Amino acid sequence: MKKKDLKIVVIGGGSSYTPELIEGLIQAYPMLPVKDLYLVDIEEGGEKLEIIGNLAKRMIKKYDIPINVHLTYDRRIAIKDADFITTQIRVGMLEARSKDEMIPLRYNCIGQETTGAGGFAKALRTVPVILDICKDIEELAPEAFLLNFTNPAGIVTEAVIKYTNVKTIGLCNLPIGTKMQVADWYDVELKDVQLEMVGINHLNWTTKIMVKKTNVTTDILNNSRESELQVRNIPNLEWDRAFLKSLKALPCAYHRYYYMKDKMLEDQKKKVAIDGNRAKVVMEVEKSLFEKYKDPELQDKPKELENRGGAYYSEAAIQLITSIYCNKGDTHIVNVKNNGIIPFLPSDVSVEVNCMIDSNGAHPIQISTPIEPHIKGLMQVVKAYEELTVKSAAEGNYEAGLQALTIHPLVGDVTKAKQIFKDILYENANFLPQFH
Amino acid sequence: MKKKDLKIVVIGGGSSYTPELIEGLIQAYPMLPVKDLYLVDIEEGGEKLEIIGNLAKRMIKKYDIPINVHLTYDRRIAIKDADFITTQIRVGMLEARSKDEMIPLRYNCIGQETTGAGGFAKALRTVPVILDICKDIEELAPEAFLLNFTNPAGIVTEAVIKYTNVKTIGLCNLPIGTKMQVADWYDVELKDVQLEMVGINHLNWTTKIMVKKTNVTTDILNNSRESELQVRNIPNLEWDRAFLKSLKALPCAYHRYYYMKDKMLEDQKKKVAIDGNRAKVVMEVEKSLFEKYKDPELQDKPKELENRGGAYYSEAAIQLITSIYCNKGDTHIVNVKNNGIIPFLPSDVSVEVNCMIDSNGAHPIQISTPIEPHIKGLMQVVKAYEELTVKSAAEGNYEAGLQALTIHPLVGDVTKAKQIFKDILYENANFLPQFH
Amino acid sequence: MKKKDLKIVVIGGGSSYTPELIEGLIQAYPMLPVKDLYLVDIEEGGEKLEIIGNLAKRMIKKYDIPINVHLTYDRRIAIKDADFITTQIRVGMLEARSKDEMIPLRYNCIGQETTGAGGFAKALRTVPVILDICKDIEELAPEAFLLNFTNPAGIVTEAVIKYTNVKTIGLCNLPIGTKMQVADWYDVELKDVQLEMVGINHLNWTTKIMVKKTNVTTDILNNSRESELQVRNIPNLEWDRAFLKSLKALPCAYHRYYYMKDKMLEDQKKKVAIDGNRAKVVMEVEKSLFEKYKDPELQDKPKELENRGGAYYSEAAIQLITSIYCNKGDTHIVNVKNNGIIPFLPSDVSVEVNCMIDSNGAHPIQISTPIEPHIKGLMQVVKAYEELTVKSAAEGNYEAGLQALTIHPLVGDVTKAKQIFKDILYENANFLPQFH
Amino acid sequence: MKKKDLKIVVIGGGSSYTPELIEGLIQAYPMLPVKDLYLVDIEEGGEKLEIIGNLAKRMIKKYDIPINVHLTYDRRIAIKDADFITTQIRVGMLEARSKDEMIPLRYNCIGQETTGAGGFAKALRTVPVILDICKDIEELAPEAFLLNFTNPAGIVTEAVIKYTNVKTIGLCNLPIGTKMQVADWYDVELKDVQLEMVGINHLNWTTKIMVKKTNVTTDILNNSRESELQVRNIPNLEWDRAFLKSLKALPCAYHRYYYMKDKMLEDQKKKVAIDGNRAKVVMEVEKSLFEKYKDPELQDKPKELENRGGAYYSEAAIQLITSIYCNKGDTHIVNVKNNGIIPFLPSDVSVEVNCMIDSNGAHPIQISTPIEPHIKGLMQVVKAYEELTVKSAAEGNYEAGLQALTIHPLVGDVTKAKQIFKDILYENANFLPQFH
Repeated sequence: MKKKDLKIVVIGGGSSYTPELIEGLIQAYPMLPVKDLYLVDIEEGGEKLEIIGNLAKRMIKKYDIPINVHLTYDRRIAIKDADFITTQIRVGMLEARSKDEMIPLRYNCIGQETTGAGGFAKALRTVPVILDICKDIEELAPEAFLLNFTNPAGIVTEAVIKYTNVKTIGLCNLPIGTKMQVADWYDVELKDVQLEMVGINHLNWTTKIMVKKTNVTTDILNNSRESELQVRNIPNLEWDRAFLKSLKALPCAYHRYYYMKDKMLEDQKKKVAIDGNRAKVVMEVEKSLFEKYKDPELQDKPKELENRGGAYYSEAAIQLITSIYCNKGDTHIVNVKNNGIIPFLPSDVSVEVNCMIDSNGAHPIQISTPIEPHIKGLMQVVKAYEELTVKSAAEGNYEAGLQALTIHPLVGDVTKAKQIFKDILYENANFLPQFH
Repeated sequence: MKKKDLKIVVIGGGSSYTPELIEGLIQAYPMLPVKDLYLVDIEEGGEKLEIIGNLAKRMIKKYDIPINVHLTYDRRIAIKDADFITTQIRVGMLEARSKDEMIPLRYNCIGQETTGAGGFAKALRTVPVILDICKDIEELAPEAFLLNFTNPAGIVTEAVIKYTNVKTIGLCNLPIGTKMQVADWYDVELKDVQLEMVGINHLNWTTKIMVKKTNVTTDILNNSRESELQVRNIPNLEWDRAFLKSLKALPCAYHRYYYMKDKMLEDQKKKVAIDGNRAKVVMEVEKSLFEKYKDPELQDKPKELENRGGAYYSEAAIQLITSIYCNKGDTHIVNVKNNGIIPFLPSDVSVEVNCMIDSNGAHPIQISTPIEPHIKGLMQVVKAYEELTVKSAAEGNYEAGLQALTIHPLVGDVTKAKQIFKDILYENANFLPQFH
Repeated sequence: MKKKDLKIVVIGGGSSYTPELIEGLIQAYPMLPVKDLYLVDIEEGGEKLEIIGNLAKRMIKKYDIPINVHLTYDRRIAIKDADFITTQIRVGMLEARSKDEMIPLRYNCIGQETTGAGGFAKALRTVPVILDICKDIEELAPEAFLLNFTNPAGIVTEAVIKYTNVKTIGLCNLPIGTKMQVADWYDVELKDVQLEMVGINHLNWTTKIMVKKTNVTTDILNNSRESELQVRNIPNLEWDRAFLKSLKALPCAYHRYYYMKDKMLEDQKKKVAIDGNRAKVVMEVEKSLFEKYKDPELQDKPKELENRGGAYYSEAAIQLITSIYCNKGDTHIVNVKNNGIIPFLPSDVSVEVNCMIDSNGAHPIQISTPIEPHIKGLMQVVKAYEELTVKSAAEGNYEAGLQALTIHPLVGDVTKAKQIFKDILYENANFLPQFH
Repeated sequence: MKKKDLKIVVIGGGSSYTPELIEGLIQAYPMLPVKDLYLVDIEEGGEKLEIIGNLAKRMIKKYDIPINVHLTYDRRIAIKDADFITTQIRVGMLEARSKDEMIPLRYNCIGQETTGAGGFAKALRTVPVILDICKDIEELAPEAFLLNFTNPAGIVTEAVIKYTNVKTIGLCNLPIGTKMQVADWYDVELKDVQLEMVGINHLNWTTKIMVKKTNVTTDILNNSRESELQVRNIPNLEWDRAFLKSLKALPCAYHRYYYMKDKMLEDQKKKVAIDGNRAKVVMEVEKSLFEKYKDPELQDKPKELENRGGAYYSEAAIQLITSIYCNKGDTHIVNVKNNGIIPFLPSDVSVEVNCMIDSNGAHPIQISTPIEPHIKGLMQVVKAYEELTVKSAAEGNYEAGLQALTIHPLVGDVTKAKQIFKDILYENANFLPQFH
């Protein structure tokens, strides 16, 4: 692959996250000599694409890097012979996210962007669009890697695995975020931290934490530093110490929705009553960010982007692309086809685990810590939900969707499931052609 | 084994169910020539044992069958060289059951005898007693079969599998009850009905129903006859038809607690408010039953026993014993070690599946219907709960218990789990030596 | 299925074994009321078919049973709406068998009808014909059971499993023969003997032998009665006692080819030098049998048929058909899709194990004895050979065939494998269209 | 672990290979600052140990590296608090190897040092000694890594995995040798070559060969460069091209014994007739090497060592130790516990696969190429042989040993197996205490 003319495509290029990616590409240029960068978006997002595109060009110009930035609505031109394609799309935009947060709440269920019934709705909207993109990739760039950031990343990646021949890796910022947090606690460099993570996207457990070759897992759990592990989008409720000790692993931020269901629901209700939902908050952040981006003097990623949540996404992405491009053989935590690496999950599902990355892609590394039933059981039921959601989203299968919601721990009741599903189908009708 | 002097032991012989078992033994005598029947109970249950023992003797005398009935508090004498040992014990008696139903309710969780936090408490009390009994069996009757009816039967059976060398089979009346109901619907004989059940005790799905060699599964689901499937102890709420169709299998009665969690909780609250809990109701039924049993004129199982719930337990038991004793090679649905027959559950857990029964015991038969994710996922998380509960109960392990409650779909929250566990430990202190 | 007009088809109806099948159908008539029996053969076998057909009619007439015997060359007419279809074909007839025995011998390898390079050649000739028959069954009788006796039965059954949707069960007389031999040794009835067999066709181990509920496996191995276990087609060389003890299971007759490779090869060479090969011997037997069959006075299966080898085939077949037809739920040892019942073999291969038989077919029963590495290893390499042979035979794949022969323990060398394969392809050219 | 005082132990330090190891340690010193190097041997090898020790000291002195070389017969002193322990022992010395080569030949079987009946005998002698060493490690250096080079390395490593708690990695020079050969063919650096190897020690297949990110597997197979792949100890017979193509993987040098059994046997017979066996040849080489080593002027590893066979052993070892010590996270092909990475082999056996190496040891990486039945089948039967051999060697179990030899493809007959086993037990009696 180490050819001269490296071509990278960003689908959803008008995203407010893009400047971070641009910054990353500039820094990585010596290792990763990108010639053409295509930012693709839909016409409705034309204004944002324009703003982002101009900012990108200013940033690149400032550092005098020979990357050509192309803006286009025609994703087929962009995909043609691409080397890496990333997706960061939001079908239905933040308005849809707002519904994802509010519909479940009506029925006393947590409404969250990527988890539970909210994530289910997002999956229904997103999977068909991604599968469409994959058809283009299969035709126009069959050797390209599709790096998927689009949430719910585990479900979207699994859909690509099951329904297409595209080489895909799903990516999340939680792993790198955890690593950075640990590095910060112990005041060491990132390279001195190694994590063994096991699980699925947004539901992974860190079962072993090595800092400078010392296993500090128990140390961290006993000192409850976990409660400092913050993700911008998720309320930072304190973990119960006895619980963490019995868990024997570091939970991820999203685990709060599962393990502290009641408090998280109360918290959401309170916040919605005061500030409106998270989608509204994000809309404001975005609006102000784009105002900043417009500034023709701006030649760098503005600080404010860090308030947006989703930090380190592009860092994770650039590192991954570099490892593939340079055939590095180092270890990343990414979403890939299971193939038995988590032996108690089906073979053809997506999992989020340590992988050795080389020019052939991501190769899962055997898990060295025994996985106890409490981790296994929760992972299995949520994965079953994901399997059903993939099927429902890809095939427009109502029955699979109803069962998915019914067994999800954040719904868990058929009456609620039916009502929520009905509202989702009704209020997202424009984005769910597969159910018509 | 086909020796002359067949010895059967009933541990918990003073149970109100015993007359049904006696009736069964009388009817089965030509196939199953029991010489000695030992009814064993603890001294606190002495009065009941006396009443039951006398009734048993009158019944046997009436039919002129040469079975010797022995009453004893010394279970070692009973177990010595026994062929079959059944257990139907209730550690803490109905007072404890009452707590099992009320403690979870305080925290807005369903309180049920065998499922959820109530079943968890019952498991903690019961497993140590059963493991003690098994030590006696290992010493005094290592070749005996332990047929376990004691609830939670799946967990108790799994504890015996994991912690002892006793040959055990767990038994429940749900499978035979379902079979009888289907026979009734189609107006056929029991032998014309075949079920494929897959799952674990009190959480099994009937994935295939054959009546006279015709697969009637879809017919039954479409016609929602399932809502007629009643178990005396469980409120008979109506199933949603669209849900049943999407489930593609007949749920068991206990599935209502999982799939209709909210309604079942409301129902329980209402009933407790009016009549008190189910334990109280059963106490009344039992009291009146024992009054009946005392009647020296009574020489048969009284009709009223059927109101007690748990019908067909003894029918299932006698059939199973006969199949083993006569090496019949027929098929029963019982609880046994998995060993890969449900490939997505661990090898060493108990499962409830079709088994071929011969003089060597129960041999699971391969499942012929594919199991879809919605069934798999729920089964896996509840089995993980059971694995943790077995460990907690057998080893007095607090951490495993806390995780068990936290991931159980009827609790599902660590705050609730901690509170419920605390109350259970406190209010059952006399019966939980393993935690001291 | 229990309809009035039961239709059975015998493909290869002109076989010398057919009278045994007729006798079985006559005896089973009260349970198995066959209305139409179709004997199908190819035109080249017309004379034999005529002889067999007439004998069958005389036999049926003698016992005054209302079975209609039809003779036809048109297998589609026969298959149309059939309930059971059996195959007992020999593509290339005994001339081809003679080659199967002689070609390997040229290269110092055992030449045997169903095992090793001889069985490989037979598989190449047979699989395409069986798959053709299956196409007709899929079209004309999709609900029919195909009971396959055609050797190599394990490979042929696996081809049907992998390449068609036909409901199939493979059948061999070794299991019933072993059972009869054990019954004879212990002077008990057949029903008092239970075997646990594990393995694949013509390579199965009896790991547990129960006689009247007593485990007599060790008794049999220690007393080396195994050497009495005879199969007409296989030289009865004496087993080494220390070896049998270390094997901890009863080998089958064909195991001699594997465990006593050298002696068996010497034995074959000697016999061929004196009498010619086994095929020639069988030709003589067959010729004389058909002379007998022609006798218009003959109204019964002649005694001499027992010299032919393959005894009890029809007994096994009739019992199996009856169990399916009557939905008996009893246990037979047959060849079915593995699906995990032998966990160290692939899911989609054929295995020969205990199955519960009902109107839905054969349901493998979990194996209760642990399988040690010496049994596992040999079974795995021969199964790998079978997988490759199925692929080679069904797809005309030379590479798979070459690897199959190379790893087979009776060849085990690439130089020999190439030479043998070349001779097979050349000398069987008329019967191997898939390689042209 | 990154402590100052790194202690390395070489058990069998008097081996003629040791100078290569010393050279490696000198070169690696900047990365791997060894403080103490213990060369351990038995008293019978005292003279050799002395010679090697002095040469080692001269070499280290020449390069002015502060490694302290200690010579001792007391392995407990050496092991105490060691970081890395390597074993390169030869129980019974070259005299025993000579028997290993000659005994099988008497019965027309290949006699080879590590494979077949010869390797079996070597395993019987070696495993008890290694397990004894492990007892010392468990007591005196429980955190140490045992790097095992002692042949048969796969079997020895498996014995350590199954019978001890020692952290072990088995090591062979075949993988690095293959890599070097490929680098040579394509005239690239070692770092530009990546191999996917799958299998067990001395029986592994290279299923994917990447050179500068291009998959060259088919290119290599088609051009039959494989026949150039030489190992000093193994006759370099030419591979059949059609066979290589059908294999779809690069065989290892030892595969010739399996795939070209007949030619290899002929070759061995011929060579033994002319030169005596390989052990005799090696004795001469060794004798002359030690003469060289004695030379007080010699301060470097002499060129002649390369004729000895076993090239690159120490290169592989030093790289592995460095990767662990420096927590490098790079990929090595080593022998480790399977744990499902080769899904069709048992969990607790040793396998030779790509592993990510960090300070916690070796973590197998998922295999990315599908493994076809011809590779699987041969690997499984030889692994079954290894499992039985481990059991026989560790427990003195005759029955397991007899079955091991019987199913091994290079013996494959019970009569031969019994005779060979008898001779082995008799002629190695001094070294087989476990069988007394």
